[in-house]
Amino acid sequence: MLRIIILTLLIGSTSFAALGQTDSLVLRKIYDEALMEGEGYENLRQLCKDVGARLSGSENAEKAVNWSYEKMQTYGFDKVWLEPVTVPHWDRGGVDRCAAVGDSIAFDALSLGFSVATDGIIRGEIVSFASLQALTDAESAETEGKIVFLNQPMNAKLIDTFGAYGSCANGRVRGASIAAERGAIAFVMRSAGLRADDFPHTGVMAYADSIPKIPAMALSTNSAYRLSNMLEKNPHLQLELESHCQMYPDKESHNVIAEITGSQFPEKVITVGGHLDSWDVGEGAHDDGAGVIQALEMLRLIKATGIKPKHTIRCVFFMNEENGARGGGAYALASTAKGEKHIAALESDRGGFTPRGFTVDGSRTNLAHIQQWLPLFEPYGINFIKAGYGGVDITPLRETGATLIGFVPDSQRYFDVHHTANDVFENVNERELQLGAAAITSLIYLIDKYGMPAPLKN
Amino acid sequence: MLRIIILTLLIGSTSFAALGQTDSLVLRKIYDEALMEGEGYENLRQLCKDVGARLSGSENAEKAVNWSYEKMQTYGFDKVWLEPVTVPHWDRGGVDRCAAVGDSIAFDALSLGFSVATDGIIRGEIVSFASLQALTDAESAETEGKIVFLNQPMNAKLIDTFGAYGSCANGRVRGASIAAERGAIAFVMRSAGLRADDFPHTGVMAYADSIPKIPAMALSTNSAYRLSNMLEKNPHLQLELESHCQMYPDKESHNVIAEITGSQFPEKVITVGGHLDSWDVGEGAHDDGAGVIQALEMLRLIKATGIKPKHTIRCVFFMNEENGARGGGAYALASTAKGEKHIAALESDRGGFTPRGFTVDGSRTNLAHIQQWLPLFEPYGINFIKAGYGGVDITPLRETGATLIGFVPDSQRYFDVHHTANDVFENVNERELQLGAAAITSLIYLIDKYGMPAPLKN
Repeated sequence: MLRIIILTLLIGSTSFAALGQTDSLVLRKIYDEALMEGEGYENLRQLCKDVGARLSGSENAEKAVNWSYEKMQTYGFDKVWLEPVTVPHWDRGGVDRCAAVGDSIAFDALSLGFSVATDGIIRGEIVSFASLQALTDAESAETEGKIVFLNQPMNAKLIDTFGAYGSCANGRVRGASIAAERGAIAFVMRSAGLRADDFPHTGVMAYADSIPKIPAMALSTNSAYRLSNMLEKNPHLQLELESHCQMYPDKESHNVIAEITGSQFPEKVITVGGHLDSWDVGEGAHDDGAGVIQALEMLRLIKATGIKPKHTIRCVFFMNEENGARGGGAYALASTAKGEKHIAALESDRGGFTPRGFTVDGSRTNLAHIQQWLPLFEPYGINFIKAGYGGVDITPLRETGATLIGFVPDSQRYFDVHHTANDVFENVNERELQLGAAAITSLIYLIDKYGMPAPLKN
Repeated sequence: MLRIIILTLLIGSTSFAALGQTDSLVLRKIYDEALMEGEGYENLRQLCKDVGARLSGSENAEKAVNWSYEKMQTYGFDKVWLEPVTVPHWDRGGVDRCAAVGDSIAFDALSLGFSVATDGIIRGEIVSFASLQALTDAESAETEGKIVFLNQPMNAKLIDTFGAYGSCANGRVRGASIAAERGAIAFVMRSAGLRADDFPHTGVMAYADSIPKIPAMALSTNSAYRLSNMLEKNPHLQLELESHCQMYPDKESHNVIAEITGSQFPEKVITVGGHLDSWDVGEGAHDDGAGVIQALEMLRLIKATGIKPKHTIRCVFFMNEENGARGGGAYALASTAKGEKHIAALESDRGGFTPRGFTVDGSRTNLAHIQQWLPLFEPYGINFIKAGYGGVDITPLRETGATLIGFVPDSQRYFDVHHTANDVFENVNERELQLGAAAITSLIYLIDKYGMPAPLKN
């Protein structure tokens, strides 16, 4: 009897060890392929240099859709298709200008996305606020007829720079309407960036209903600093603004999708995505060229390493994350209409930097299930799997019961380039990009193999 | 009685919690000061731009010594001094040249440090080896009268790039003598770098006794790739080399040292250092401007946050790590001669990238002692404290019983810039640099407060 028990224990432990060993060998194979034969960096170069910036509704966004569709077809996946998305179409229309009246040097400025134009030149005195709260608390007497300057820096004390971005992005989105409600004639803000430099950061803003629409611009951090110094010396300094941006009717565009169809559960889907659109300055290299290229590289790595997935695995290049998030909505709608069930969806939209971990937005059971695999990732420098945010484009899949996962790379340099002319291919490192692709692929392999224990909603 | 036990337990746990809380507050203060009021980045800019490259024995190295001494004096530390170090003096003497005979485009090449010059132009056929082992195994008939080309790439599969560097650096140091022993007339190697680019990586080499000294150069990875392709088409391709480098008599130089003297144990020392010298190309920004600047910033942060150390805490800018490591030896010797005891020494010489952890070279007891503090670091993205290497300059302190600690930042980008013209200030990120300074300062604060439990040698 004792012999049987010992034998059972031995068999039990051997098979468990073998299981873990198999997975660790598969991960090693994925990483080897990614680091030695990776195609992500060359693909990113093409997207950045041959296509370039690709704001929703622009000609370049359509060029990006075509490039992506053709690129996916070269890999021989089971299916590649375009999914219609109706997108907003805002265009900068020319060079934005912001200068102190009487000063020959202009500030580095960019209109915010969806801003109205100045319709000629706007001139006015400046009233400065150190935070959105201070602006919200202001009396109209302070702001009436003036240009509001929201001079709120990102909080450099926060180690995760995304934590600091949130409150600045809130000012960017809502600041113009809060200022207009108090009679301001225009809104300028210090860019949501951490570095002292000359690159203004654009990004989406929104006008509140039934409040006058006033032009909105961001100044580079150096320009904001200079303006602030000038104001200290001359509180009656006047600013002049000129912009040419305009809204056009919505346009038809597309998500671009490729899949390897599941051998056992073709109707159960695991989606990995980033967004194909970018702002109209720079090349959208980190935001989010890196993310879509990693999603594509994931599907390539699955195929190249000979993994035969049980579930359907997709890479989705979402259109219009930056100013509308319509691609994410269209994808979830179409998927549900087809009767598919998403067991999980992962988004990469935090730049192509060294991988640090994953955040999981799902049930405790599914989180604990995924956390079991952390030891497999530790040799590759992935240090955490914890509860947290998934991503903008996959959020609509949440209500279907899908476990959402955010890929989390190192965040220190992201807000040096985010939404700026500095977000170019040269600022992406090949190894960092490919380590991210390998980490994502490894997690998808494990999710496909072991599934998700907590049931999906019906 | 039960009441007393409960009370004791309560007091015990309260004081333990309070202790942990105090430390976490001090760490927060250190990080806040580093991220909001940091002076490291501006200091690094001055060292890179006002001084620049600073190879041991060069005029610029002396300029760097003077800059460092004056900079340290501005901070009002308890002591600042220069410590004599006799250093080797090798000089490149001009532009290195390596080209295929009959080809109009030269390869990107740099002589290795300590190499002899070509004395005119050297021409010869090429024999290529994929590894140092293959060269070691070669018969003289293969290499006699030829130029040996060691075309060994760094192993991109290794996640820690330093692991891959080791074997390539071994080829760089020993390759020329192994080739010369087999009758070769010159030695060229593929640079020890991971990226495909045009920057050759120099670095130290050494000639074995009683073997002829032949010139040694490194080619950029792109040039090595091109040469390799050319050789496939034409195995009898001839290479021509020209270099002007020379050894001069040793020179007097200095380590530059500042300290805050310990209030309780002034003779017990904790040293934090990096190396002030750099290679003669680029600006020595990551290697090791970042390290010395972090050591200085550590001492500034101790002072600025009002910490009154019990032990003497020093920042040491070691001279001559790159080609001799004589500064580290001189420092250990002088310290021992003064009857000081080093309880710990930390080195930062792996670039100014995002901090990942610390490696400890010391007794198990002291390692376990330091590992207890890991939870204090986790909010700052430091994920490991483990056994491992300290650093070149602090190694001579090992025999005194000091616990040696290596600061470990992210390693992915280090070998893109290491020993190249691309190691410039612009490639260092301010937050990454300052997070490193804060992590180092935090660890030094804890070592000073809690000491090292395992006794020092006598």
